[in-house]
Amino acid sequence: MKRTEIGTLGEFGLIEKITKDYKPTQKSTIKGIGDDAAVIENSNFKTVVSTDLLVEGIHFDMTYTPLKHLGYKAVVVNLSDIYAMNATPKQITVSLAISSRFSVEAIEELYRGIYLACEMYGVDLIGGDTTSSQKGLMISVTAIGQGETDKLAYRDGAKVGDLLCVSGDLGASFLGLQLLEREKHIYKDHPEMQPVFDGNDYLLKRQLKPEARKDIIEQFAKAKLVPTSMIDISDGLGSEILHICKSSGVGAFVEEGQVPIQEETYQAAIKFKMDPITCALSGGEDYELLFSIDPKDLEKVRFMNDIYIIGEVVEAKDGAILHTKGGNRHPISAQGWKHFSQEK
Amino acid sequence: MKRTEIGTLGEFGLIEKITKDYKPTQKSTIKGIGDDAAVIENSNFKTVVSTDLLVEGIHFDMTYTPLKHLGYKAVVVNLSDIYAMNATPKQITVSLAISSRFSVEAIEELYRGIYLACEMYGVDLIGGDTTSSQKGLMISVTAIGQGETDKLAYRDGAKVGDLLCVSGDLGASFLGLQLLEREKHIYKDHPEMQPVFDGNDYLLKRQLKPEARKDIIEQFAKAKLVPTSMIDISDGLGSEILHICKSSGVGAFVEEGQVPIQEETYQAAIKFKMDPITCALSGGEDYELLFSIDPKDLEKVRFMNDIYIIGEVVEAKDGAILHTKGGNRHPISAQGWKHFSQEK
Repeated sequence: MKRTEIGTLGEFGLIEKITKDYKPTQKSTIKGIGDDAAVIENSNFKTVVSTDLLVEGIHFDMTYTPLKHLGYKAVVVNLSDIYAMNATPKQITVSLAISSRFSVEAIEELYRGIYLACEMYGVDLIGGDTTSSQKGLMISVTAIGQGETDKLAYRDGAKVGDLLCVSGDLGASFLGLQLLEREKHIYKDHPEMQPVFDGNDYLLKRQLKPEARKDIIEQFAKAKLVPTSMIDISDGLGSEILHICKSSGVGAFVEEGQVPIQEETYQAAIKFKMDPITCALSGGEDYELLFSIDPKDLEKVRFMNDIYIIGEVVEAKDGAILHTKGGNRHPISAQGWKHFSQEK
Repeated sequence: MKRTEIGTLGEFGLIEKITKDYKPTQKSTIKGIGDDAAVIENSNFKTVVSTDLLVEGIHFDMTYTPLKHLGYKAVVVNLSDIYAMNATPKQITVSLAISSRFSVEAIEELYRGIYLACEMYGVDLIGGDTTSSQKGLMISVTAIGQGETDKLAYRDGAKVGDLLCVSGDLGASFLGLQLLEREKHIYKDHPEMQPVFDGNDYLLKRQLKPEARKDIIEQFAKAKLVPTSMIDISDGLGSEILHICKSSGVGAFVEEGQVPIQEETYQAAIKFKMDPITCALSGGEDYELLFSIDPKDLEKVRFMNDIYIIGEVVEAKDGAILHTKGGNRHPISAQGWKHFSQEK
């Protein structure tokens, strides 16, 4: 039997390989694999379902992740996928595999974060499964939401001439992670030293306790705006732009100067000798929304809070291009998660 | 901080501890934690959701589990939970955490089983998540189904005087597992020996490639029968009877002689020096249905295929009792899964 290492394909390649010959057959399956969440016909509303699996040592490091924050984040990253459909999450299921390293109290602390997220976002925990693991902690969350048929925003609806927008700011979560990793390594060599995070609370919060953009979806509803396409930024802006381009059969032209990056993020990137725009494009875990709108909706967006127009949808043949502050054009590339290739 | 080992609570105790102070708040949450699946209000139909997490070394042993069978089983055990609500599964999501030990071909083989189950049961795979693990394979499946409001069967509807029924036969899967474990240990000591499974195909099939009882739910629909309560038998008949008793606030009186056990199961139990009824009560992984019916529906059930009346629902004060072939009365006890306490 031929053996291909998973690392040679990466996550996206593996998923494509596994799903390419598969066709849904149920009439009620409106949207299956290939978007932030799946959509199921259910009379007046569509049921929207999304799922994520978080693995210790891969997605989180218990050295610096408070359990309550971890529970909160595990829920929020799923809700973010439902919002990215322009839908409203209503329920979640949470399954855990737990090694004997964790005590009951530790799991209770984890659930405190899960319940807090439920309260903050108005969703119910409706089920799950709990089992032991041979090593480490795993968290599998499924979020279920409701959306209106004509208001759902998929990845495949962007049209040439649409404006590309993002919510919030980008790159902070990635730099928060760099800070945590740096202090972890210092602590390893000098256990007597206290971690130094002065003035970087925002970066740490973005990494350890991110929020999903419920407020943006609510603004859309109020303004009767339906994005032509939308995706949440979990793998980095670059990767998400390419997802929309591929699904919609379009290209993208992005102005570097318009990509929102906070001053704190900017300064931290410089300290780490990194390019701030690279952190925004490839950092990931921002859980902001990237979406396209019809130009006729420009006036609606212009007066919304915390939304930035970063570029335009162009023809596929023009590719996905970053127009730098220096006036150069760089093709946008996807980094995505490199779990499989990072493995030892 | 106080530290309680998870093993001292067990799975059920841990779940109870985690969920006891939690109350769903969404109007659309009809049934949350505490049944085989959760139910969500969605106009004409209810959306029914169930999830399971399978961990290598805990739920399955790669030494003797063909990957295709594993994929098939991972789906089927979830569908079984949907059928146990008297609902019809329509979609599943599948998330995997995979160690570098597994090749792309291995994961493709796993998916062959997943897709086969989708085809056999008429469900769509609609999403998931794929990531790496530091050790071993984990499979998280969420099944979503549709049920009619007045036809859903919960665990809490059994009434005194109802008849207790089971589908199929019990204990075979557990004995299949004993056979596989025995051959594994022989192989460890004598790698030159070939495994001996003569005449035990049925037991192995029940363990490695179980089926969910779609046909039983279809019979119910045809006969316009709605069980007063229902649960699928995953942890063993004893444990499931106690679940129904606790949820419904009733007791149960079960005739040992009426519990369906196949001749092959019976003989294998004797060979392993086990009591066949203990295998049926505590073995688990049968994925048959345990349900209660109103006595007025007796004539409907009497002529259904593969259904056995094993006892009666009695008052809670009378407890859950097994009336043995020898005429004795034994309290029925729950074994359930003992993952946490089995851990090293």
